[in-house]
Amino acid sequence: MYLTEMRESLRPSEKLNYCVPLLWVPDWYDGSVKVSGGKAFVDPGEFFGKIIEWILARSDKSIDYNQSICLQRNEISRDWIKGATIYGALIRSTAAYNHKGFGRFEQDDVLGYRESGTFLKMIALLPFLKKFRIDALYLLPVTRSSNVFKKGELGSPYAVKDFMKIDDIYHDPLLDDWKVEDEFAALVEASHILGIRVLTDFIPRTAARDSNLILQHPEWFYWIRVEDLYEYAPPRIDDLEFKIPEYHEMRAIYNYPSVIKHLKRFEFDPKTSDQRRWNEFVKKVNDSDFISDLVRFFGLITAPGFSDWINDPQPTWDDITFLRLYEDHPVTSAGKVQPNQPPYILFDVIKASKFPGERPNIELWNYISSILPEYQKRYGIDGVRLDMGHALPADLEHLIMKEARDIDPGFVFIAEEFDFSRAEHAKKAGYDAIIGNSWWMLPRPEKAYEFYQNIATSTALPFIAAAETADTPRIASRKNGEILRYLVPYMCAFAPSGIFFINSGQEVAERQPMNLGLDNSFQGRFMLNAEDEFQGKLAFFDHYALHWEDGQDMARFLRDLSHLRSQYRSLICNGTYRPVYFDWQDGKTANASFWSEQEGIIFVANLDLDSSRRVKIELDKTIGKVEGIVRRFCSGSWETLGLLEVIDVEIEPGATALFHITRLEASS
Amino acid sequence: MYLTEMRESLRPSEKLNYCVPLLWVPDWYDGSVKVSGGKAFVDPGEFFGKIIEWILARSDKSIDYNQSICLQRNEISRDWIKGATIYGALIRSTAAYNHKGFGRFEQDDVLGYRESGTFLKMIALLPFLKKFRIDALYLLPVTRSSNVFKKGELGSPYAVKDFMKIDDIYHDPLLDDWKVEDEFAALVEASHILGIRVLTDFIPRTAARDSNLILQHPEWFYWIRVEDLYEYAPPRIDDLEFKIPEYHEMRAIYNYPSVIKHLKRFEFDPKTSDQRRWNEFVKKVNDSDFISDLVRFFGLITAPGFSDWINDPQPTWDDITFLRLYEDHPVTSAGKVQPNQPPYILFDVIKASKFPGERPNIELWNYISSILPEYQKRYGIDGVRLDMGHALPADLEHLIMKEARDIDPGFVFIAEEFDFSRAEHAKKAGYDAIIGNSWWMLPRPEKAYEFYQNIATSTALPFIAAAETADTPRIASRKNGEILRYLVPYMCAFAPSGIFFINSGQEVAERQPMNLGLDNSFQGRFMLNAEDEFQGKLAFFDHYALHWEDGQDMARFLRDLSHLRSQYRSLICNGTYRPVYFDWQDGKTANASFWSEQEGIIFVANLDLDSSRRVKIELDKTIGKVEGIVRRFCSGSWETLGLLEVIDVEIEPGATALFHITRLEASS
Repeated sequence: MYLTEMRESLRPSEKLNYCVPLLWVPDWYDGSVKVSGGKAFVDPGEFFGKIIEWILARSDKSIDYNQSICLQRNEISRDWIKGATIYGALIRSTAAYNHKGFGRFEQDDVLGYRESGTFLKMIALLPFLKKFRIDALYLLPVTRSSNVFKKGELGSPYAVKDFMKIDDIYHDPLLDDWKVEDEFAALVEASHILGIRVLTDFIPRTAARDSNLILQHPEWFYWIRVEDLYEYAPPRIDDLEFKIPEYHEMRAIYNYPSVIKHLKRFEFDPKTSDQRRWNEFVKKVNDSDFISDLVRFFGLITAPGFSDWINDPQPTWDDITFLRLYEDHPVTSAGKVQPNQPPYILFDVIKASKFPGERPNIELWNYISSILPEYQKRYGIDGVRLDMGHALPADLEHLIMKEARDIDPGFVFIAEEFDFSRAEHAKKAGYDAIIGNSWWMLPRPEKAYEFYQNIATSTALPFIAAAETADTPRIASRKNGEILRYLVPYMCAFAPSGIFFINSGQEVAERQPMNLGLDNSFQGRFMLNAEDEFQGKLAFFDHYALHWEDGQDMARFLRDLSHLRSQYRSLICNGTYRPVYFDWQDGKTANASFWSEQEGIIFVANLDLDSSRRVKIELDKTIGKVEGIVRRFCSGSWETLGLLEVIDVEIEPGATALFHITRLEASS
Repeated sequence: MYLTEMRESLRPSEKLNYCVPLLWVPDWYDGSVKVSGGKAFVDPGEFFGKIIEWILARSDKSIDYNQSICLQRNEISRDWIKGATIYGALIRSTAAYNHKGFGRFEQDDVLGYRESGTFLKMIALLPFLKKFRIDALYLLPVTRSSNVFKKGELGSPYAVKDFMKIDDIYHDPLLDDWKVEDEFAALVEASHILGIRVLTDFIPRTAARDSNLILQHPEWFYWIRVEDLYEYAPPRIDDLEFKIPEYHEMRAIYNYPSVIKHLKRFEFDPKTSDQRRWNEFVKKVNDSDFISDLVRFFGLITAPGFSDWINDPQPTWDDITFLRLYEDHPVTSAGKVQPNQPPYILFDVIKASKFPGERPNIELWNYISSILPEYQKRYGIDGVRLDMGHALPADLEHLIMKEARDIDPGFVFIAEEFDFSRAEHAKKAGYDAIIGNSWWMLPRPEKAYEFYQNIATSTALPFIAAAETADTPRIASRKNGEILRYLVPYMCAFAPSGIFFINSGQEVAERQPMNLGLDNSFQGRFMLNAEDEFQGKLAFFDHYALHWEDGQDMARFLRDLSHLRSQYRSLICNGTYRPVYFDWQDGKTANASFWSEQEGIIFVANLDLDSSRRVKIELDKTIGKVEGIVRRFCSGSWETLGLLEVIDVEIEPGATALFHITRLEASS
């Protein structure tokens, strides 16, 4: 519906002056195009029009594509997430490009084109992404983000200014009078037509420092005096190490002078302090641009967030604050704070899952749990990654899931949980998958074996099998990146319990990370050449366009890999997993095999990046007596080796081998 | 007048939450201040109020300080520029600071403070700058700059959108209802009260691609079709090297296919093409934000600028275009272009000084030459650096100077001329000084001797004696910067014919350049630590704040050096210059001496950065038989050596020595 209207809104300009990467132009594209290097010049109205037509041609008029795919199909199982292939995108950057085709990247250029990513352009990328056989698009936040205390040219998408609104930066000026919300609906619709589910980020623990909720509910926030801002920091606890505190430790923390001083910085919210003045203020100010006025009028500001770990070396999280989940202080504070202590942020308050209060802020909880239903009804999203779920009270976490699944039982929740030992807990809490730490273990050959053979095979929930994520270094920029960019995705594609994940940019061997959040350092910000206009830029905080022109090779590799995986997806997900037995093993031959009654596949990776290795795969020890025809995958096709019981294989340094066995009869 | 009003507009907030570098707080400051490291927290109303009061206390009510200092004093001589000390500033960056005192730099922060530089803050910096005994403040453009085709977060100050308007970014929100033009007037007033003249940049050859002049005068610009933009480039001339063409070469250039193709890209301006449509268009659009509409409506855009050198490896200058100085094509094109050829940009058109047309665009020339008088009358500026003057027709250059000097004969013109062999020509054209290339020669010890002994001593005009400029690498970041940051300023301070120049940031040993225009490469953009929030930022194109906290040492050194120079300024400028005679010389002992009837000073620098050297200065050979008491400047004070004819001196690697001779009687 939105997509049909969108098609109608697009007018050919009859000028070939809109530059896109050649990779964006589908093979079947029959519009006018002028090619120059890795770039293509098209008529934007024609280009987007034809792609949307191609998508619409695949739609069924009887289906409401702005429902989740589960609702469309009347499915209640969330099993689709197992073994899915997911493409993770920050659209602002994923769909960004210098459409002038010369000079520097600009958010909006003189030709009237928005060079930063828009929903329209993301729709145009779907045929390209479809080549990776993706089942789902995972979108980093598209909600309206804040510009207050921003860390670069742009606000971080994780500093959510308004949970209910979509950021205007995603509007495309080629769609003259469109509302950005309708453009987002069109993206979900287009994805669903192509069978691609849409997952988004959901960030219920924090809000931007100037959240639009403040005007309605200042009491949902924590407040400090403005003049104390500059010395505001997580209080240092000298006698404890870097850890999440235990109950008795948290109790003791209240006696520290640094904590007593910290608590004194907090004030009651401006409405509670002076209802009359607050009412006056609210009448005068702009609905969304009020924070400077508030600061000037009351001398108060929402307090910066910080980590729930004691003595965390991270500085304060200046662009966000916490939502006040309880009306009272946490139980740990009993007898420790003055009766008139205003609400405050401390390690226990942050870690509300472990240190709840006694009186939930019901109105806020109801608001928070009403957000996903809004996105489900309005757009038809299929699931979320829940940000900092580990810090939410169990009851709130439960409420959020219940409200979403009351509407759509197939609605998927992915936990922001890196620790596999917490997978069981996450499963009980209702999650369908965890992030895990494959992005840390697999790029380290000395850790990869342990991960592949033991951790991945014993997890209680599927995990995101990722060579890189939006928070980590790029696989191509890692030490030995020339090898790892192929090896690690291969391992991800055949990892037991792995959800195959492609991080936007990985398909063009991008080197510059999007954020320095995990496994990185300050130096990680400078992965490009000095003359590159994006050197030093991070997509979370700055404008960034991927290096599409360099990407043909890696895109082809990932396309072939995804194709291979999708062929054996059912076997990987539903077959019997068996570790592979070799004639010898030194912990450097990672492996997995998956079996059904009819067939099996065997995946082997040489984790030694310096030496090739020759091993014999013993089929009987692996799966029991088996008679079958063995084929090996070689340079894009299957080569038959014959009826074998032992497969003799030589693998180059950091390379992989894949075998397929057609069973002649079931093992005895 | 403006300053008094400004004082009255400032209100104390009674909150010490405005953070400034400690270096900004004058010694005499008696307002409230909370010091923390190199930072000071003040009440901004009180802080700026007290500094303005201090300045006003030095004013004379009978003087109109918004006249140039020459006009105030009824002086017509421009000799003040000889031997002056100039501080060069890009106020947007020079007066920038994170006034929150925590987190990241933001142009405008949540406390309502503008962190990028403003005129108000520049006024507050004057007491600090006064310590360097500066005679003049040289301001990089403060005119309204363009955001079209910008190269970073901000438009370059050299892409002038409106010659007659001041950029709003210089407005300080602490001055609620002020107009930025009045704030600039207040800065000039404050400077003049303190005896500091104000020079600005003047850029008459180019304009922003979306210059506000377009709406009135599209025919003053060169136009190309939008769809040709992406392949627009200076035509390559295969048979010639990298050079400014001679007349016969320029004639031959017209026959090149690349040039013929280039000329075909140009179109007549949209008004000339279709007067009726143009009139309609002008009625509909916004006065200053019209370029996207124009592009869409006419399919035309002003052509990018490029270098007047053939085969210059520089890319096109995308953020600027040239003004059309002649109504006809240059004389070089006679018989070479079609009769209906629209106006075009080519090497000869750019270098209008060498290849003029026959019919000057009189209306444009009158406009251009009316700009400076406007700044003289409205603000009282004292002079300019003329940008690309070398490309202006001599008659226009002359007209510009005449109009300015008709108002103020003391009005100074500095030529953007790096080549000392052109100094004589510049002098004849009416310039008072040239830029020269001390910033290139002096930081290279192997070149410094030649420069100091031969070039500086034979120049026809004074030159800017600079260790660094806004276009060059920072002296502190040069190879051997730890030595050169002291050695080169010392040489500048005592250079024959030198105008002592301090480039904003040099006084805090800043390492990051402001621009990569001269003597630099892409790598030069990354001079800071990886964790520095300004790593990779250039003040010309991005927000940038100097590293004030690290600057105490260098500020003290430059203050002492400037003090020393100002004491002997008259001797250096008006005394007799004599090279210094040593008992031996190997071209590594740079030197200069200046003599009057009563006294002399001798300056010696050891250009050998590895070895100390011992030399004997032979006074009789230097200046003739002289009997005098010799003192040596040591660690901040003068130490008497006695009555000497030969001064025996040992100088550490890269160090300097300064001697003063009080003559007992004139030499015989």
